[in-house]
Amino acid sequence: MLKLFEYNWQVRQDWFDWCETVSEEELMKKRTGGIGYILPTLYHIVAVEYGWICGGIQGITIEIPSFEAVAGLQQIRAWSARCHAELAPFVYGWNDGLEDRIMIDITDEGEREAHTYGEVMRHVIAHEIHHIGQLSVWSREIGKKPVSANLIGRGLFD
Amino acid sequence: MLKLFEYNWQVRQDWFDWCETVSEEELMKKRTGGIGYILPTLYHIVAVEYGWICGGIQGITIEIPSFEAVAGLQQIRAWSARCHAELAPFVYGWNDGLEDRIMIDITDEGEREAHTYGEVMRHVIAHEIHHIGQLSVWSREIGKKPVSANLIGRGLFD
Repeated sequence: MLKLFEYNWQVRQDWFDWCETVSEEELMKKRTGGIGYILPTLYHIVAVEYGWICGGIQGITIEIPSFEAVAGLQQIRAWSARCHAELAPFVYGWNDGLEDRIMIDITDEGEREAHTYGEVMRHVIAHEIHHIGQLSVWSREIGKKPVSANLIGRGLFD
Repeated sequence: MLKLFEYNWQVRQDWFDWCETVSEEELMKKRTGGIGYILPTLYHIVAVEYGWICGGIQGITIEIPSFEAVAGLQQIRAWSARCHAELAPFVYGWNDGLEDRIMIDITDEGEREAHTYGEVMRHVIAHEIHHIGQLSVWSREIGKKPVSANLIGRGLFD
């Protein structure tokens, strides 16, 4: 479990670096699919991970800023780092005994849904990888090489 | 580990179903990013999973057909099912004792690289999710709703 989070965190940093090489205009240009913009996609990835792990599983009262409140590459990068500092201890402390614990989620429609911690953690992992796949297409549209999605070769298992 | 494979297999079936609703022309139209075409992306996903798990980790002598040999939705779907039947027993038999076992990969450049089984398995998981993210953008370009990428709500943990 941990290794896939570490993969996501490393890839996310690489995309933040990639964003440094792209104009603000490209980062906020409307595109087809997904969240529809590069920078809001990165915002969304952070919000979902932080929301499920700190707000959902751990039940901490969290505040997720509006996109406008953190709009801008450096602001989102800094916010991502703050969220990471809050949620990483839980991920590093993960053990099989947590797999089947239940959290109750209140959906946007106000319904109560029960999920195991294990389901939520995997949801968060898949969620980020999926959106990063979308960034890779948009990167090529701009004419730029995307960040490598390879998990092998990142030194995660050294 | 298993649950993320099951997620990928379920999402892949959903995409095969989605492909049934799209013309052959759209499935083979050149697009920006990734593998560059919808159907070859699905072929590539199958080839990589099968190649790493059966050919790589298990060291079985496998044959990966050229895309042309399985070109066509039904052929790729059937080939995916055959590969799945071959590799699924290994995935279902996964246990923590396999994590650190080593396999030797011969790269396209002829170099020998050592990887743990755990690294390879996670590489395969992330690989499919990443490419599926690309399909979701192309789906919107066609004006169609993509398959849901949500892991929660798929009944994988019922």
